[in-house]
Amino acid sequence: MHSMQTWEAITSRRNVRSYSDRPVSAGQLDQILEAGRRSPSSRNSQPWDFVLVTDRQQLQELSQVWVGAGHIAGSAATIALITAGEEQRRTGFDLGQVTMSIMLAAADLGIGSCHAGVGDQDACRRLLGLPADRSCAFLISLGYPADRPLAPIARPDRRPFDEIVHRGHW
Amino acid sequence: MHSMQTWEAITSRRNVRSYSDRPVSAGQLDQILEAGRRSPSSRNSQPWDFVLVTDRQQLQELSQVWVGAGHIAGSAATIALITAGEEQRRTGFDLGQVTMSIMLAAADLGIGSCHAGVGDQDACRRLLGLPADRSCAFLISLGYPADRPLAPIARPDRRPFDEIVHRGHW
Repeated sequence: MHSMQTWEAITSRRNVRSYSDRPVSAGQLDQILEAGRRSPSSRNSQPWDFVLVTDRQQLQELSQVWVGAGHIAGSAATIALITAGEEQRRTGFDLGQVTMSIMLAAADLGIGSCHAGVGDQDACRRLLGLPADRSCAFLISLGYPADRPLAPIARPDRRPFDEIVHRGHW
Repeated sequence: MHSMQTWEAITSRRNVRSYSDRPVSAGQLDQILEAGRRSPSSRNSQPWDFVLVTDRQQLQELSQVWVGAGHIAGSAATIALITAGEEQRRTGFDLGQVTMSIMLAAADLGIGSCHAGVGDQDACRRLLGLPADRSCAFLISLGYPADRPLAPIARPDRRPFDEIVHRGHW
């Protein structure tokens, strides 16, 4: 597999919502899921399960669960992050960590990603066959970018370094 | 600078609470902070500032702000994640993403890290000179490990892959 230096992956990752037809292999998906599995969490609680969706019709249906989830429909695969009950508020920090692990592991392979929230939790539960005590916190779509390959971004759309970084004191 | 392939950094990262005397350079710290700056956030809100602390006495005082923050005292440097007001609950997911970006950028350089919460917010605010409308959400300590260099972990202490990963449906 093609892979990147860490710094290249960190600086190349961007939200990708439009995907090419290039397939993502089962081995690549397993590596991305393994990065998620390894992610740290509060007291190593690992408050997550992952449902991997690759079926086109199921992806199209999943894309309807939130107005901002349209990009799921055309993804090569999507990982649904499942938590117990509605505990997303408590586990938000850990879910952020696991999402970043997954996105950087994807970027390492040149694979774009974009996460989406879930509005219609009942529809999502039905589509994924979740037990009543679980819910889907986020969907992370994956696929090679339709526009251009991932490459280091020289000037990211972010606040200036010297505005964000303080030294010793505010 | 020595750096790693992304997969090596992802599989080598672990919580490091005990640090060697080996210094971490200003250039390395800036690279780690830049990874944080580039991290994604909800609607690109970037709800954070970073206060970099390298002074030994200040690190020792910071280590007192929570019972679980003792490892800050011996760190080569610590990044304080600052948010507006007490909005940590709302921004937890974004703070998780930025923390993971910082930890993986550190691992890339062979630098260990460990985050800690803040119990005594007033003491933390005073030590960092924060305005009244800001608070410190987390402290991320950095330093070369005292025990052994970062290296890929073959069998991480995590739930089994096949227990966490579901295919198509739960």
